[in-house]
Amino acid sequence: MHDRHLPATLRFMLAARRCEQQGLETLAQTCTLVSLLSNLVHALQRERGFSNIYLGQPQPRLLATLEQYSDEARGWERQVRDDLDRLDVEGAERARLYHRLAYLLHGLDDLPALRRHIRDLHMGVEEASDSFTRLIASLLAVVFEAADTAIDPQLTRALVAMFNFMQAKELAGQERACGVMGFSLGFFDAPRQERMNHLRAGQQRCSEIFVQYADSDALQRWQRIEGSSGQVQRLRELALRTSAEQPLDAGLAELWFELCSERIDAMHEVEGLLAEALRQLCRQRLDSASMELDNHRALLRQLARQADHQQPLLFSVQGRTLGEAAADDPLQHSLLDLLQEQSRHLQRLGDELKAARSTLAERKRIEQAKRLLMSQYRLDEQTAHERMQRAAMNQGLRLIDVAERLLAQEQAAP
Amino acid sequence: MHDRHLPATLRFMLAARRCEQQGLETLAQTCTLVSLLSNLVHALQRERGFSNIYLGQPQPRLLATLEQYSDEARGWERQVRDDLDRLDVEGAERARLYHRLAYLLHGLDDLPALRRHIRDLHMGVEEASDSFTRLIASLLAVVFEAADTAIDPQLTRALVAMFNFMQAKELAGQERACGVMGFSLGFFDAPRQERMNHLRAGQQRCSEIFVQYADSDALQRWQRIEGSSGQVQRLRELALRTSAEQPLDAGLAELWFELCSERIDAMHEVEGLLAEALRQLCRQRLDSASMELDNHRALLRQLARQADHQQPLLFSVQGRTLGEAAADDPLQHSLLDLLQEQSRHLQRLGDELKAARSTLAERKRIEQAKRLLMSQYRLDEQTAHERMQRAAMNQGLRLIDVAERLLAQEQAAP
Repeated sequence: MHDRHLPATLRFMLAARRCEQQGLETLAQTCTLVSLLSNLVHALQRERGFSNIYLGQPQPRLLATLEQYSDEARGWERQVRDDLDRLDVEGAERARLYHRLAYLLHGLDDLPALRRHIRDLHMGVEEASDSFTRLIASLLAVVFEAADTAIDPQLTRALVAMFNFMQAKELAGQERACGVMGFSLGFFDAPRQERMNHLRAGQQRCSEIFVQYADSDALQRWQRIEGSSGQVQRLRELALRTSAEQPLDAGLAELWFELCSERIDAMHEVEGLLAEALRQLCRQRLDSASMELDNHRALLRQLARQADHQQPLLFSVQGRTLGEAAADDPLQHSLLDLLQEQSRHLQRLGDELKAARSTLAERKRIEQAKRLLMSQYRLDEQTAHERMQRAAMNQGLRLIDVAERLLAQEQAAP
Repeated sequence: MHDRHLPATLRFMLAARRCEQQGLETLAQTCTLVSLLSNLVHALQRERGFSNIYLGQPQPRLLATLEQYSDEARGWERQVRDDLDRLDVEGAERARLYHRLAYLLHGLDDLPALRRHIRDLHMGVEEASDSFTRLIASLLAVVFEAADTAIDPQLTRALVAMFNFMQAKELAGQERACGVMGFSLGFFDAPRQERMNHLRAGQQRCSEIFVQYADSDALQRWQRIEGSSGQVQRLRELALRTSAEQPLDAGLAELWFELCSERIDAMHEVEGLLAEALRQLCRQRLDSASMELDNHRALLRQLARQADHQQPLLFSVQGRTLGEAAADDPLQHSLLDLLQEQSRHLQRLGDELKAARSTLAERKRIEQAKRLLMSQYRLDEQTAHERMQRAAMNQGLRLIDVAERLLAQEQAAP
C-alpha cells in the first residue's frame, strides 16, 4: 500500500478510489479481449457455414476457400491466445471469467482435429455444425461473463449491448448454416422449418435488448441493415414453403449463403463500431478515474499537511456537535464533504450497475429454468424454450416470470 | 502468473481456483477485523451508557469508572487500527468496504474531542449519546459491508448472523441509554416511550434474522439469555407506566444500567462464540481450498505431462464427435469432467451466495426506501420506519414489499 505516511482515514479514502481505478484497468483489458473475441467468432461463423457447404456437396474446388476461412480464424485465434498470455490473472471476483476462458481454450484446442475431420469427410454436416456452434457458444459465454463482472455502469451497458448483438449475429449465423443444409437438400422438413422460425425469433429478442442499450451510431447502422434485408427475407419465406415433394434447385444454397454472409458481415461492422465505442469509453473512464484519483490524493495530502497544525478540528465527523470548533472552518467540513460525496457516488454506482445488469440476471434465471425443464423432461434446448414461451403466452406473463415460477416450484419440491 | 509452462487451458483452470483461494484469504482478514470491531463496539456501547449517566448526574466519583471504560475502548481502538495498518488494501470489488473504513476512522479521530467535551460537561446528554451512536453505526456499517462482499456462502451466512446480532445488541445498547435518560429524569415522556417500543421491536426483528442464520451453540446461548431477562422486562414495563406526575426514584437509572449491562455483556459473549465460529470456518474453508488447489494443480500437471505424448486426444471437448479417438480413454474425459465439475461448483456457489445475501439485499432496499421517505417528508428515521411498518400492516404486505413499491413510485415519478 502506498500513501503509508498519510493518516489512516485518508489512506482508506484513497484505497477506495484506487480500487475503482484498478477495476477499470482490468475492465479495459477485458474489453480488448471482447473485441478480439468478436473477430474470432465472426471468422468461425464463416468457417462453420462454408464447412457445411463443403460437407453438403464435397467438391475439391471449395477446399481452397475453406482453407482461406480456416486461416483467418487461425489468425484471430492466435491474437486471442497472445492476448490471454498477456492478461493479468488476478482478482478474487474473476473466477467465473477465468473458468469460461479455460472452457473456451479447451474448445479451441479441439479445432485442428475438427478441421481435419471435415476435410477428410469423416464427419456429418450436422455434427460439424454442432461442434462449431458449441465452440462459438463458449466464446459468447466469455463475453456474457465480461459484461456481468464489469464494475462500471456505462461499460456494463456497452458490454450488454455488445453481448446481445453478438448473440443475435450468432443466431443469424446458425440460421445461415441451417438454411445452407435445407437449400442443399432442396427442401426444409418440418423440424428444420421450426428451427428456422426459432432462430428468427431469437434474433428478434436479442436485437430488442441491443436496441435498449446501444449508442446511436451502432443503432442507426443496424436499422439500415434491417431495412435492406429484403432478399434474405424472401428466401426465408421460400424456405418455409418447400417440401420433399417440391424441392428447389440445390444451387440456392450458395446464393442463400452469400446473401446471409453479406448481412452478417454488415452486422460484424456494427460490432466493430460497438468495439470501438467500448474502447473509447474505457479510455474516457480510465482517464477520468485517474484524474479523480490524482485530485483526490493531492487534496488529501493538503488536508493532511494542514491537519498537522490544527489536529482535532480537521477530523470531525460530528463537527456540528463539537460546540466551540469554528463551524465555518472550511477545512473542518472538507473531509466530511468528500466522504459524503463518495458515499453518494458508491450508492449511485451500485444502483446503476444493478440496473445495467438486470437483463443479464434475467437471462441467467431463464437459462436456469430452461436447464431444469431440459433435465426434468429430457427436452432439447429449443423445445424447452418453446414450452416456456407457450406458457408465457397462455398465461399472459413475461418469460422471466414463467422462469421464476418454474424455479420456485423446484425449490418447493420435496 | 505462475504455471506459465502449463498449456493455457490448464493455466486458466488454475487461475479460477486460485481466485477463490485469494478471495478466502482476504475474507479471513476481514473476519479477524469483524471480531475486533465487535469488541470495540461493545466497549463504546458501555462508554456511551456510562457517559449518559455521568452527564445526567455529574458526580466526581463516577469519573474514575468513566475513565476505565474509555481506556478499554481506547485499547480496542488501538487493536483495530493496528489491524487496519496490516490489511492488504487490494481488490477492485472492495471499494465500498474501504470507504466504510475511511468513514469509521474519521469518526474514531473525533473520539478524543468528544470525550473531552463530556468530562468538561460542555455537551448535553442527548448530543453525547447521538455522537456515540453515529460512531457505532459506522462500525456496524463495516460489518454489513464485510457480509455483503464475502465470496463464500457459508461465511456469508455466518457474517449475516454476526451483523444481525451486533445490530440487535446495539439496539439493546440504545435502549439502555434511552432508559438511563428516562430513569434519571424519573419518568418517560411520550416520545421517549415510543422510542423504547421502537428499540424493542428492532431488537426483535434483528434477532429473528439471527436465529435463521446462526449455528446451534450461539443459538442455545441466546435462548438462555432471552429466558432470563425477566427483570429487564419488568423495568421496561415500569418505564412505560411512568409520567411527569408519577416520577420514580432517579436511583433506578443505575439499576437499569446494571441489569441491561448484564444482558448486553451476555450478548457480547454470544458474539464471542460467533467470532470464534467465524474464525474456525475461515480456517476450514482456507484449508480445504488450498488442498483442492494443490490437488487440482497436481492433476493438471499430470494431465499436461501425459498430453505431451498424445496431444490431440487430451484436449477434446467434443470427444464424442471426434469419431476415432478412443471414447473410453480416461485421459480424454478427465479434463472435460474437471471443467464440468467446476461449472457446477461455480453455479452452486453463485446460487448459494445470492440466497445468503438475500436479507442484506432486502435490508438495503428498505433503508433506501426509508431515506427516500425521510427526504420527501422531512421525517426522522424512526418515524419513516414506523410509517412503512404501518403501511405494511394495513395492506397485509411485508416491509420489503412496501419498500419496493415506494422505490418503484419514485422511479416512475417524472
